[in-house]
Amino acid sequence: MVWGCITDFFTYETTKSVVVKSWSVGIINRIVQLLIIVYFAGWVFLHEKAYQTTDTGIESSVMTKVKGFGYQNGLVMDVADYVSPPQGASVFCIITKLIVTENQFQGKCKQPGKYYDCNSNQECDMQLGSILANGVITGRCLSSNNKTGSCEIKGWCPSEDDTIKVVPMLEVENFTIFIKNSVRFPLFNVTRGNFPSTMNSSQIKKCNYDPVQSPFCPIFRVGDVLKYTGQTVGDIAEKGGEIGINIQWICNLDVDVENCVPNYAFTRLDAPFAKNYVSKGYNFRFAKYFKTVNGTEFRTLHKAFAIRFDVMVTGKAGKFDTIPTLINLVAAFTSIGLGTVLCDIILLNFLKGADQYKAKKFEEVSSNQVDGASAAQSPGSQLSLKPGIKSSYDSGAHSLDICDQAM
Amino acid sequence: MVWGCITDFFTYETTKSVVVKSWSVGIINRIVQLLIIVYFAGWVFLHEKAYQTTDTGIESSVMTKVKGFGYQNGLVMDVADYVSPPQGASVFCIITKLIVTENQFQGKCKQPGKYYDCNSNQECDMQLGSILANGVITGRCLSSNNKTGSCEIKGWCPSEDDTIKVVPMLEVENFTIFIKNSVRFPLFNVTRGNFPSTMNSSQIKKCNYDPVQSPFCPIFRVGDVLKYTGQTVGDIAEKGGEIGINIQWICNLDVDVENCVPNYAFTRLDAPFAKNYVSKGYNFRFAKYFKTVNGTEFRTLHKAFAIRFDVMVTGKAGKFDTIPTLINLVAAFTSIGLGTVLCDIILLNFLKGADQYKAKKFEEVSSNQVDGASAAQSPGSQLSLKPGIKSSYDSGAHSLDICDQAM
Amino acid sequence: MVWGCITDFFTYETTKSVVVKSWSVGIINRIVQLLIIVYFAGWVFLHEKAYQTTDTGIESSVMTKVKGFGYQNGLVMDVADYVSPPQGASVFCIITKLIVTENQFQGKCKQPGKYYDCNSNQECDMQLGSILANGVITGRCLSSNNKTGSCEIKGWCPSEDDTIKVVPMLEVENFTIFIKNSVRFPLFNVTRGNFPSTMNSSQIKKCNYDPVQSPFCPIFRVGDVLKYTGQTVGDIAEKGGEIGINIQWICNLDVDVENCVPNYAFTRLDAPFAKNYVSKGYNFRFAKYFKTVNGTEFRTLHKAFAIRFDVMVTGKAGKFDTIPTLINLVAAFTSIGLGTVLCDIILLNFLKGADQYKAKKFEEVSSNQVDGASAAQSPGSQLSLKPGIKSSYDSGAHSLDICDQAM
Repeated sequence: MVWGCITDFFTYETTKSVVVKSWSVGIINRIVQLLIIVYFAGWVFLHEKAYQTTDTGIESSVMTKVKGFGYQNGLVMDVADYVSPPQGASVFCIITKLIVTENQFQGKCKQPGKYYDCNSNQECDMQLGSILANGVITGRCLSSNNKTGSCEIKGWCPSEDDTIKVVPMLEVENFTIFIKNSVRFPLFNVTRGNFPSTMNSSQIKKCNYDPVQSPFCPIFRVGDVLKYTGQTVGDIAEKGGEIGINIQWICNLDVDVENCVPNYAFTRLDAPFAKNYVSKGYNFRFAKYFKTVNGTEFRTLHKAFAIRFDVMVTGKAGKFDTIPTLINLVAAFTSIGLGTVLCDIILLNFLKGADQYKAKKFEEVSSNQVDGASAAQSPGSQLSLKPGIKSSYDSGAHSLDICDQAM
Repeated sequence: MVWGCITDFFTYETTKSVVVKSWSVGIINRIVQLLIIVYFAGWVFLHEKAYQTTDTGIESSVMTKVKGFGYQNGLVMDVADYVSPPQGASVFCIITKLIVTENQFQGKCKQPGKYYDCNSNQECDMQLGSILANGVITGRCLSSNNKTGSCEIKGWCPSEDDTIKVVPMLEVENFTIFIKNSVRFPLFNVTRGNFPSTMNSSQIKKCNYDPVQSPFCPIFRVGDVLKYTGQTVGDIAEKGGEIGINIQWICNLDVDVENCVPNYAFTRLDAPFAKNYVSKGYNFRFAKYFKTVNGTEFRTLHKAFAIRFDVMVTGKAGKFDTIPTLINLVAAFTSIGLGTVLCDIILLNFLKGADQYKAKKFEEVSSNQVDGASAAQSPGSQLSLKPGIKSSYDSGAHSLDICDQAM
Repeated sequence: MVWGCITDFFTYETTKSVVVKSWSVGIINRIVQLLIIVYFAGWVFLHEKAYQTTDTGIESSVMTKVKGFGYQNGLVMDVADYVSPPQGASVFCIITKLIVTENQFQGKCKQPGKYYDCNSNQECDMQLGSILANGVITGRCLSSNNKTGSCEIKGWCPSEDDTIKVVPMLEVENFTIFIKNSVRFPLFNVTRGNFPSTMNSSQIKKCNYDPVQSPFCPIFRVGDVLKYTGQTVGDIAEKGGEIGINIQWICNLDVDVENCVPNYAFTRLDAPFAKNYVSKGYNFRFAKYFKTVNGTEFRTLHKAFAIRFDVMVTGKAGKFDTIPTLINLVAAFTSIGLGTVLCDIILLNFLKGADQYKAKKFEEVSSNQVDGASAAQSPGSQLSLKPGIKSSYDSGAHSLDICDQAM
């Protein structure tokens, strides 16, 4: 009995097939199969690289350094003056225009601007709690000789007047930005730098990034960057702006790792807000603090209009891996099989002699027949099973049943 | 011979099927198929959008601006005083409490705090190398008249005493944060901003974010943000804290891109450490540097308790793509086929007349029979192949073999 | 007729199979199936966890705090002096060497450095527009008594001379960095902190990170971190450098969430540039601004050589999900089926009696036969369909056709 079970286990079951020798359906079958194979081989595997596992969770480190000199309010500005924050991180600002309010002391003074014009304290009372002024509104109206006055504020005085005209630092156009970027794909433990190790010091000092002529030079002229994003220096230096420098690493690690190189793209980050009539440009305020000889603190307030650069690094590395390959191969094979669905429809419905094909493909067994057969068990019944096969199978089925019970 | 090969190539092979006309197994079959179809159509395709390729590697840029006035140590604080760093990046701090130690000069002085109380130099020698003091421990005990003294430190003097009581800037509750966020899905080259371009300046100036009434207003009241995270102003202004402002973009790019809008969520970032009795709150130290008339540098040290805001942007965009669609469709079709596995088990084991079905489904051929057949080659053997078919196929198989050898 | 349609719909179609009772092909079949099952169960499901959906888009917040004292230019440096920026964000610098240029006023002076040596104004004219000097080259050569002079610059004077020798702050070795990191997996809404909530204040204050003995201590000694990256304190303190502190969260959320712990790794971020003879180390310039008694602004310029630490957080969490499970299960089942492809090739080509198996597996029907049959419709034709089955099926096919037309 055990032997029977083992014998039954080591059998091989394969589907019984009907081979249709017909030119029309044969050609359709092969064309459909060809199309499916071409689609999978060409698009899924070659173009979309479905045989690779991909790593998009890169670790990236960006170091930046700006060089150049400009003039602002009659003074020469160098890196320590116009780059903020100074550490050379991936997000940094180049200040292009400074509205400087010198020698502010804590006290009370008038708030400039038409919006805070007043003729009586009542008008200023209505502004109490305003966060758009330059200090806390006290509710008093400062006016002299019955002329229109201004509301009084408490805070740093004199108050900033940001409507004054300042010439922006247009020399920013010739500034250069050096970007050092190293990325690591943790899944594959591959580390890359944004300029080749064969580049020497003098090459790097002389070169300027150009998408065609020197695509791997890590020195970017600000004027070029602005040009790539379609902005004029005059406009952005006046109002400030946000520029995105995208470093994209798309690497196929199945080939030489030296082909894993960065690709730079430049975008205007405030583009989605271009249509809005609000919050144009980019500016922020900061203060420098001083002390008088007798110890009173005072400050110089700066409203800085700046070009903010966001160096953003994205990356995707792919490498051959068995799991996606297998899953996609199985999908491909199964898809080839799905071609038979179409051919079956054609064969069984639209071809001459479809009924004959149906009769050949389908073998029918109804429960009535089975009932009759199991009742009569006559070899000559409508099921017309060949006696030899039937009996030999029966015994197998029996022994299998016994196996099941025995186990 | 070549013609034979071509003829053999353009044949169509389809599986021979047994059609069982039985109500019970027929109904089970259709129900199983229906369940599988419903699962794939409803869950996999409609709910999980398995027909889309997704992009989670977004490029994001965040610009922030705080407005409001508060009081600290009797002085009016404005944005330039309490926002740090001032550039309006995605991570910024609003300082709510300042412990100011003015006029520190390099020198030697006593270290405050019970931990550094001493009666002899020996006690202070044990503290040498301590990094918890405010300067380098010299090892001397500064005491007068045999009273308990304090260890001497070398560094900026007078030393900071951060145990003094300072009233925090509770006005922070009414401060507002303006957030400008633009995201880009590089895979689909779609750029979106966090407020609609139809919003005009006055609308934005007046509105306040509210999850129900104005979910797209980019102005956030600090008090509201604290409320959403379940924190009180008094507590967080006293000790500092970390607040996460999550901007989530979940976009279905198969529909109108105008439906791709941000969703804001507010979390307390130090929540995992809420149970720890260590490092509560958030604070940091910074100094302002001054010079005396004769050129000696001195500084004012600030221990700043601050609310740190981390604006974090996450996003996922999906768009129809053939590859995931195809793979999932093939999986769906194949899964429907897997329904037959269940039905076969029922049909061949539990149904009345299972043996008849088995006999009908399985055609057995044993190696003994094959051996006998190949020896005898009699058409009347137990294999009972129909002579016509056999011979016609044999020739085909033969010709195929020849083809293989010829190629 | 409707009844006939319903009857036809609730039929069950299963493939007709040929069961080959052969030891050789049976064993091959089972071995191939076993290998496929082992591969899927062991590698795909157990090792690669293909039954999980993964979330890599983590939200992370990092807070850092440095402690320690060092000496620079004879002064004691504390945290407020050497950490930049001071806010304790994920990217921060510890300044290890400062080249200080005191009391710079706007004016004109000579540019140090051999490169700007000159004997005539013509030589300096050639340097006009140079961005490597410390100010704007005026074109004048400042020389006295016919000796070699230097080109004149306009800007902050006196000009910085960064060739002077400064002793770096080697005490940085004993500084400690406290890192507080909380991560959230938005897909699963799981939040984790980088040290267990059972750690109390005194434990945290005393411990030091060690990969073996205290892998969850959030305090890192700078000297240890440098050691892990294979760098010496002397070298990096002199030239500056970039260190990456990687916090990796690989979490299997199917098990207890307490097993979701961080793993720290330390890398040298400028490693890809180690072979380049350019831009070694890390430095940046910043200035402190002062005012004279009569209101003129002057500054102290600092060229800071620093160790920059980038705390980078990556994470991947996996949790059981039906969709990947199902897709991979279907792939597995289908792959088992693909084993028959191999066995068929063996069975039909290399086994004794292959022709008999072919004859058994393939039933041929050629269009000629079909044509002849449809012309003659004789039950005794070469198709040799059993009359009973044929007729009963025909009626079914007929009724189905009628159904199709009726629907």
